[in-house]
Amino acid sequence: MIDLAEAIGLVEAAARPLGPRRVALASADGLRLAAAIAADGDSPPWDRAMMDGFAVRDADIVPDGVTELDVVVDLAAGDVTALPIPPGCCARIMTGAPLPAGADAVVPVECALDGTAGTHAGGRVRLRDGRYRAGQHVARRGTAFRRGQVVLPEGTVLSPAAIGLAVEAGATHVVVAAPPRVAILATGSELVPPDSIPAHGQTRNSNGPMIAAAVRAAGGEAVALGSVGDRPEAIRAAVAMGLAADILVLSGGVSAGDLDLVPEAFAACGVAEVFHKVRMKPGKPVWFGRRARGDGQTLVFGLPGNPASSLVCFELFVRPALAILRGLAPRHWHLPRVRGVLSAAARGAGDRPVYAPCRVHASGTGYAVEPLAWSGSSDLVGLAVAEGLMVLPAGSGTLPAGTEVDVVIRTGDGG
Amino acid sequence: MIDLAEAIGLVEAAARPLGPRRVALASADGLRLAAAIAADGDSPPWDRAMMDGFAVRDADIVPDGVTELDVVVDLAAGDVTALPIPPGCCARIMTGAPLPAGADAVVPVECALDGTAGTHAGGRVRLRDGRYRAGQHVARRGTAFRRGQVVLPEGTVLSPAAIGLAVEAGATHVVVAAPPRVAILATGSELVPPDSIPAHGQTRNSNGPMIAAAVRAAGGEAVALGSVGDRPEAIRAAVAMGLAADILVLSGGVSAGDLDLVPEAFAACGVAEVFHKVRMKPGKPVWFGRRARGDGQTLVFGLPGNPASSLVCFELFVRPALAILRGLAPRHWHLPRVRGVLSAAARGAGDRPVYAPCRVHASGTGYAVEPLAWSGSSDLVGLAVAEGLMVLPAGSGTLPAGTEVDVVIRTGDGG
Repeated sequence: MIDLAEAIGLVEAAARPLGPRRVALASADGLRLAAAIAADGDSPPWDRAMMDGFAVRDADIVPDGVTELDVVVDLAAGDVTALPIPPGCCARIMTGAPLPAGADAVVPVECALDGTAGTHAGGRVRLRDGRYRAGQHVARRGTAFRRGQVVLPEGTVLSPAAIGLAVEAGATHVVVAAPPRVAILATGSELVPPDSIPAHGQTRNSNGPMIAAAVRAAGGEAVALGSVGDRPEAIRAAVAMGLAADILVLSGGVSAGDLDLVPEAFAACGVAEVFHKVRMKPGKPVWFGRRARGDGQTLVFGLPGNPASSLVCFELFVRPALAILRGLAPRHWHLPRVRGVLSAAARGAGDRPVYAPCRVHASGTGYAVEPLAWSGSSDLVGLAVAEGLMVLPAGSGTLPAGTEVDVVIRTGDGG
Repeated sequence: MIDLAEAIGLVEAAARPLGPRRVALASADGLRLAAAIAADGDSPPWDRAMMDGFAVRDADIVPDGVTELDVVVDLAAGDVTALPIPPGCCARIMTGAPLPAGADAVVPVECALDGTAGTHAGGRVRLRDGRYRAGQHVARRGTAFRRGQVVLPEGTVLSPAAIGLAVEAGATHVVVAAPPRVAILATGSELVPPDSIPAHGQTRNSNGPMIAAAVRAAGGEAVALGSVGDRPEAIRAAVAMGLAADILVLSGGVSAGDLDLVPEAFAACGVAEVFHKVRMKPGKPVWFGRRARGDGQTLVFGLPGNPASSLVCFELFVRPALAILRGLAPRHWHLPRVRGVLSAAARGAGDRPVYAPCRVHASGTGYAVEPLAWSGSSDLVGLAVAEGLMVLPAGSGTLPAGTEVDVVIRTGDGG
């Protein structure tokens, strides 16, 4: 059994920032490009009509007068023609369609005279465009970007506009500083899925959804592996699957009995133990190790099965690991702490520091710390409404109201 | 054609905060409960062993001495027995298992003497527990919460602990202030999916992923409907599907030509037009309407198909609608604006205010506004690296360097 500060130091020492990863553009909102994106073609890819109207030849237009032209083809968006527009002719064209060869400009449909606005191929249109400029209402090929041009440099944050541009440039996947993948597994033959009605002796797997939410709040990508019963082969198989992730968070099966198969399964899967058991309450049985994976590693946390213990261990051990993998600066590794004064007595544990749920109120120039009712490591009621975890030092017995204590503030994602 | 301020006012007047919605707990991270959650059973649901060891009868324990007991049953987590523990006997029990009838307390496995720690049913165990207290290492039924008790009051934010507690309490779905659902549809026969190689005349649907990312960044839930060609029945069918959402954002098909089938499809689906065409650049053809749905409504936006126009219209019209549906205060409806000084000349449009991409730098006590190269409504390159949209007023012609302008800042989600 080691001290909490030493344990946290060992986690910090083991964690390394992740390298860039290739992800689907559809799940890359707000991520930062670790490699530039170059265009796979020109944009616009061809001379494109920017108005609905008639694609004309500059030379045919009568300045400040009326131009009469034969309409030889109808071009909607998506339509193309291989035939050039002959002199004295035009194409009916819709916004977004490629300008046909021979044509230089678009005269808007509003400029058609004498009811000829609806003229289609085979008809004759009369146009007056007093403000006509050569090449008007055409977006020329390549004016936004050219094939091969870097349109999104390394380091760009994928804003909505950048995502649209990446699609235009032909990128379906992007190389980014991606959120760490965290596999989440619960062990225990008593566990049933969250949407089940438990029979006698059974318990809903509440750790899975809880830890998944904690992972997302801390900037990770949660990969839910559900729960597995207390059978050595089943646990080994599930652990092996979880080792594909950057972090594996398992809950349950790390205390002292002969059904504590988890450390065995870790060993069988090649996970090297860094520590097991930490002087703290709740959370004493917590296990931590690491396993090489390719040129990186998987960090492996075995959290106690009781939900309050599991969540406290997540906040103290898994959160800093996630922050380090994300490449965050040390000031973002841990939840913030404040000092405050107990507004009521709180009972510590003789041998270990206690992390217990509390509310925190502004009081004068400091904080008042209000202990919440808490029946122990399986009780989430206090934690669900808590604003923080008050830290009651080891050996302190019952702390009277007025004692100053540290509080770990549970809001915010640390990033 | 109406002025931009009037158009924005019409959107604000039409939008209403959404009522609460029932969502799956798995997608409720961070949302606020609009209805309390009461427990569907006690927690713990039975007296639960909190250590691995032996479930004993208080009366059998020899204080400060050695207690010898027959082990009559082995109970792992998930195991139950209907038989009570007789006097002079005990059960081998694992953490998380229900305490059998007759037993009062758990003696940890570490207290077994003379190598009897591994004793199973049929054997005899010798125990010495110097710190024995009646009822120790048992979490009593209902000490965390009782069946019917409100464990999560209305207004609770669904933190990870609250999600764990909701699972324990039997909630699979929760009533919350949920993000507005925004259906996203692109029209145009030229469109192909983002992962396609476009043929001549075709264009990747970049608006879909771009608007979806913008919706998520503004706190909405994006429902991607892909793209649909320029056929009246196809557009009507897709619009009808989109009308199931709180907001339908369609892009393309709202300008002037005879293939502008979108306003027709809106009318055919019962969407009442509020406005069509706004004095602004880009984005002039924008369309807005509403349709009753149950006791609520769907707000319908027809954005221009060019991507830059589409995004500018999203930020100016759809964003405030989303904010109002979310119930946000007016100060969060729009992106923030700052005043700054042009560091280079910028060309406005004679008849309409222009919203054009720019960078914004701190400069002295104010901001310098650097216009970005921009070839118009189909060019996302400038927008992708822009920090804001500078507003060049109507009728201003070319504004020289040094002119003071408004800038809409494009970062932040407004919530």
